Amino acid sequence: MRTTEVRLARMVMSLRAVFWSQVRQLASASSVDGVLDGERLDRLQLPSYELAFAAAELLAVETVLQRPGMTGAASAFTGSELKVRLARTFAAEICRSVLERLRQVALDLDDGAALRALDDDPDWHALCRELSSGRALDEVGRLVCESDEEIGEVELAPELKLAQSEFRRVAAQRVMPLATKIHRQDLTVPEELLACLREMGVFGLSIPESFGGTASDEHEDLMMIVVTEALSEASLAAAGSLITRPEILARALLAGGTAQQKARWLPLIASGEPLCAIAITEPDFGSDVAGLQLKATRVEGGWLLDGAKTWCTFAGKAGLLMVVARTGADRALGHRGLSLLLVEKPSYDGHAFDYRPSSGGRLRGNAIATIGYRGMHSFDLSFEQLFVPEANLVGETGGIGKGFYFTMAGMVGGRMQTAARALGLMRAALLAARRYARDRRVFQAPLADYSLTRAKLARMAARFAGCREMTYAVGSGARGGDGRLESSLIKLFACRSAEWLTREALQIHGGSGYAEETPVSRYFVDARVLSIFEGAEETLALKVVARGLLEQALKPASAGEAASAGETA
Amino acid sequence: MRTTEVRLARMVMSLRAVFWSQVRQLASASSVDGVLDGERLDRLQLPSYELAFAAAELLAVETVLQRPGMTGAASAFTGSELKVRLARTFAAEICRSVLERLRQVALDLDDGAALRALDDDPDWHALCRELSSGRALDEVGRLVCESDEEIGEVELAPELKLAQSEFRRVAAQRVMPLATKIHRQDLTVPEELLACLREMGVFGLSIPESFGGTASDEHEDLMMIVVTEALSEASLAAAGSLITRPEILARALLAGGTAQQKARWLPLIASGEPLCAIAITEPDFGSDVAGLQLKATRVEGGWLLDGAKTWCTFAGKAGLLMVVARTGADRALGHRGLSLLLVEKPSYDGHAFDYRPSSGGRLRGNAIATIGYRGMHSFDLSFEQLFVPEANLVGETGGIGKGFYFTMAGMVGGRMQTAARALGLMRAALLAARRYARDRRVFQAPLADYSLTRAKLARMAARFAGCREMTYAVGSGARGGDGRLESSLIKLFACRSAEWLTREALQIHGGSGYAEETPVSRYFVDARVLSIFEGAEETLALKVVARGLLEQALKPASAGEAASAGETA
Repeated sequence: MRTTEVRLARMVMSLRAVFWSQVRQLASASSVDGVLDGERLDRLQLPSYELAFAAAELLAVETVLQRPGMTGAASAFTGSELKVRLARTFAAEICRSVLERLRQVALDLDDGAALRALDDDPDWHALCRELSSGRALDEVGRLVCESDEEIGEVELAPELKLAQSEFRRVAAQRVMPLATKIHRQDLTVPEELLACLREMGVFGLSIPESFGGTASDEHEDLMMIVVTEALSEASLAAAGSLITRPEILARALLAGGTAQQKARWLPLIASGEPLCAIAITEPDFGSDVAGLQLKATRVEGGWLLDGAKTWCTFAGKAGLLMVVARTGADRALGHRGLSLLLVEKPSYDGHAFDYRPSSGGRLRGNAIATIGYRGMHSFDLSFEQLFVPEANLVGETGGIGKGFYFTMAGMVGGRMQTAARALGLMRAALLAARRYARDRRVFQAPLADYSLTRAKLARMAARFAGCREMTYAVGSGARGGDGRLESSLIKLFACRSAEWLTREALQIHGGSGYAEETPVSRYFVDARVLSIFEGAEETLALKVVARGLLEQALKPASAGEAASAGETA
Repeated sequence: MRTTEVRLARMVMSLRAVFWSQVRQLASASSVDGVLDGERLDRLQLPSYELAFAAAELLAVETVLQRPGMTGAASAFTGSELKVRLARTFAAEICRSVLERLRQVALDLDDGAALRALDDDPDWHALCRELSSGRALDEVGRLVCESDEEIGEVELAPELKLAQSEFRRVAAQRVMPLATKIHRQDLTVPEELLACLREMGVFGLSIPESFGGTASDEHEDLMMIVVTEALSEASLAAAGSLITRPEILARALLAGGTAQQKARWLPLIASGEPLCAIAITEPDFGSDVAGLQLKATRVEGGWLLDGAKTWCTFAGKAGLLMVVARTGADRALGHRGLSLLLVEKPSYDGHAFDYRPSSGGRLRGNAIATIGYRGMHSFDLSFEQLFVPEANLVGETGGIGKGFYFTMAGMVGGRMQTAARALGLMRAALLAARRYARDRRVFQAPLADYSLTRAKLARMAARFAGCREMTYAVGSGARGGDGRLESSLIKLFACRSAEWLTREALQIHGGSGYAEETPVSRYFVDARVLSIFEGAEETLALKVVARGLLEQALKPASAGEAASAGETA
């Protein structure tokens, strides 16, 4: 008799085949002579969007079915009963979701027969009954409630394991006691926390040792994920997100800085003095980088900056801003007219600042009040004739017009980190919901005794564990590729999962979940930012993922097939 | 050729048939000798929960397919193109959702064949392609974006229509300018707003004219819905929810008060002086009314109250509290040991109060800070030997032990009103999202030009319109029954819809949706309370709806059939 895993893997392979067939159909419907046509593609945004999410879910379920330590999809899952059952639950739930998405996609294509055949497969129905029925989820939920084993544990090298336990300890002892207050009073991350994190080397995680950081070639991304997840569990904005900015700036400098610039800035960034911020988005240009307008005008010895930026997180506290500016007058150059300039400024506490340097010009900042993600503040910035010396243009003359590419180097890491932030929030919410379900009695029994609660907790735990495996697998490079597509896929999937999971966790808390003093209410509002920042969901799904898939499908047959095989192998 | 509506109605009837067959199967699986068995039922909570939501969705889609002015389901929809297409979109989307829920339910039953047959029906697939494909939604979304016609308009009697436009005007001119500030600074509804609403007779909507109110026999519930919706559009807590408390108290008094009590209190409540609050929930008993512990001890001339209440909204500002207390010493009496006592107190502004009446005892209140639903504050209350005169026991001696039943009279209205509150939030969010999509340009075109945005707006508008038709139909009594089940169904459906719709509206706003100064961020956090209060989602779904359905199914065949026919007629 075949194992549950083999049966699940068979279903996933069938779904993957339908998926690629739909990608190919969509590619031919949205291209002219083998080249994607913007207008045609725009008319097919809904199916493209659903395919992007299906791609993310397929990657997740394939990762879980091929987890390290298994000799291919043909073996049964190994590990504790909880681990095995969560993996199966996850696989079944995600297959159901993919099926539903492909059904939606099919409505805009002629296809539908292959999907119906899948839908009617008796073994698939048997699997659903075994793994997704109320009874099955109740059993898994019981395990979740009764066990204290780590949920979604992944194999980690010893130094990563050590970092995880260290940062979890710091998060619990140093961050958690301050987190509610920082959120409710909209405070700036206090110096005592920053000092503690500086000491632990948080700001140098992506910076090579030769530049004062701690990045090793081997576990660079994984270390960042481990630390980000652990800190985000205590607070998204007052801890878990502190690494994103140095990460983006350091990668931009490593990609495009001169030897001198690297030697000057990287050790400072790694030490957390100055703190940094990244100014890309403009009031009229959210995700549309090619349209950015903030102007850099060449003057004697440097540049003058004029224009506005918005959603610049931590711009007040930061002493160093990476500003994406238009150094060429020719607007038609689009993203090829952008360069990176480093603005040095004093560090300000509070929600507004007005900086008038002796070198001339002015930079004003005003924090935008938000429903969550509080602690660093996101600023509206206004630049007026602000002088930046020549030496602060990343790559100096050679960097002119390359700002977009240097930034992209950091964005892949930023997206992976955002998935890790989602993991931290999910873990916090899941454990809080389980704790509440164990302790709270309703109608004379603990909430955890009710099968609806258990079914919810089973799904939440399974989703968290699946997201975790996927994120760590992508972070370890196990999923191949240059990471651009994969980092977008985990970002999409983990962020949506965090929105859903924190909603469920709040609901399990009932009224008290809606109270500000209960941390789960903060997890809920914090999670809401995840699908918006670091690449809005729609932009990532359409412009990065769907476009990437369609281009892959339009390549000559051999390459397309190889890509397809690579995905399903 | 058959019209789209007939084809949709055919699908709905098939779904309804499978639904009832599942209800019957579940009833037999969870009963012993024809009587529901608590323990068996508890094991089947997940399918019961899904069936409850399916019941709500079926009621919604049946209402839309049978809207007034149509000669049965066989006619085509009438009205503008927008109205017709939104109704079709809604029907198709909801059928798909019901199908998915019934699939989940089937996993715990033996059934599945009937569902698969439905699933494979070629005409259903054709309908999905016609109504739910990206192309179809794009067209509907274009109409939504280009038209300024009222979305989800329902036929209203002239006096209701007049009230709607009056209250929309007041909401826009008087409430909206204060709403953001009240939310962000967590203020108490200001006196100027209360005075304006008193003058408009808001507090007497459920009180007969003979007692100083404005309730007419004819449109009682509809007037409440119209006013609640219009006010909630500007602010859930600072306007739209003000009517809930007088509604519940007035209905309790009408159901159980003595002639003297009605004559004394109802005119005062109708005039909005005093304002009132309802104290039911206790810290250890959320939805479990039978377990309530706050104790009323009989003393010379009245009662002494001792114990705690929580989530008592508006308790500070209110001058009159309706307190559900245990007047019998026998705990085993459960909800039959409860009575209603009216506590008079001074009105306090602010977040805390400490009342020590000259008649002895003490009542303290502390507002619970919440992520949304701000303006009235929800209080923790502590009663210590607080004296309440004999005359303030609702129904006097005859009311002892009947508190639960008197309260229930108001709860049906409270749930309907909560659906109306959800409608107000949805309308606000939908119109804000459409406005933003029209105005905001990304990648050189308005957001509304993108087919993904249009598909989202089409679904949002269709959902809102469907919820609206359903709520007004139930409010007009058109759906029959005593309203207990129907009010729970619209509460479940409209509240979940509002959570989803406000999330989508925020997402369309991108980063600015997450900013506190953009009203949509408030709609999002406000909507989150809807599935928690006035009967938590799980409690309503399992204890009211599923139980009601299963009991219906266990009745002798003739009654069951009649009920079934009534639902599908």
